[in-house]
Amino acid sequence: MDTYRAIVSKREVRAFAEREVPGEVVARILQAGRMAGSAKNAQPLRFIVMREREGREALAACGGFAMHVPAAAFAVAIVLVPEPFRDDGGFTIFRGPFDAGRAAQNMMLAAWSEGVASCPASMHDAECARLVLGLPEGHLVANVIAFGYAAEGAERGIGGRPRMPLEEMVHEERW
Amino acid sequence: MDTYRAIVSKREVRAFAEREVPGEVVARILQAGRMAGSAKNAQPLRFIVMREREGREALAACGGFAMHVPAAAFAVAIVLVPEPFRDDGGFTIFRGPFDAGRAAQNMMLAAWSEGVASCPASMHDAECARLVLGLPEGHLVANVIAFGYAAEGAERGIGGRPRMPLEEMVHEERW
Repeated sequence: MDTYRAIVSKREVRAFAEREVPGEVVARILQAGRMAGSAKNAQPLRFIVMREREGREALAACGGFAMHVPAAAFAVAIVLVPEPFRDDGGFTIFRGPFDAGRAAQNMMLAAWSEGVASCPASMHDAECARLVLGLPEGHLVANVIAFGYAAEGAERGIGGRPRMPLEEMVHEERW
Repeated sequence: MDTYRAIVSKREVRAFAEREVPGEVVARILQAGRMAGSAKNAQPLRFIVMREREGREALAACGGFAMHVPAAAFAVAIVLVPEPFRDDGGFTIFRGPFDAGRAAQNMMLAAWSEGVASCPASMHDAECARLVLGLPEGHLVANVIAFGYAAEGAERGIGGRPRMPLEEMVHEERW
């Protein structure tokens, strides 16, 4: 699919069909995430691919709006490792999630361009997510992305969530 | 350009040609950023398009590695507004930058697919960036993306920054 078309047509889908996503598509999605840039190429991200439903059910309890994660075909937990932040004082929390958002968008667009839908889930209880995934201390789950083919009617049902007009969103030169 | 190809071929470019980017391309880049999803569709982002060099020079002084911003054709400062965070306690800093990363990647991929290069710049001195852009208190610059056509040899010069192997980056089911 053309890049711009994939970007502007992408919708968050939270209802998935019971159908597996082929391994080679999963591999391309992960590769897309890997190729996202990171500040100073620190590469602060790791991915946990969750194909088994059990782990995804445990994880769904760690987020306020993560009920769509168990029924996905698979999920990718994006983990921030602590090392790259150490030389950067107060920017710990700030830069890692930005890089995680870049990788997440790469993965979701690569998926969408092959007909695979997705929706991120915030882990509001970070410690819960850390324990479920067995992460060492200091590691943080930036987000969990649920992937799968959309359930029949799911895309139509959601439609596009409204966006504020571009004129309202964009300032010229200064605020 | 095909979505997957755009994603895996995208390089950060910090040296730009002295050539303007047509207005309709800038408009598509902004639209790509606007269409990125956000947690609970809170839409916490605003964009400041900086075509004038003067403002970009002032902004470059707010980041440790932002020397490429003045020579760009234009830049987009991604601003986080405070309102959507208020009901979410400690997650203030955490979710906004993730959404900013998603929008940034949409913009950079839309640009790349039309031959326009880009590179983000972190604003290490957040207060400096806030003052340069005239942002109200509580607003935060998540990142500044520099856009422009690559200077001759720039892409070849940078090549791809190395990435850790996928096997090292990816865990299965748990850490």
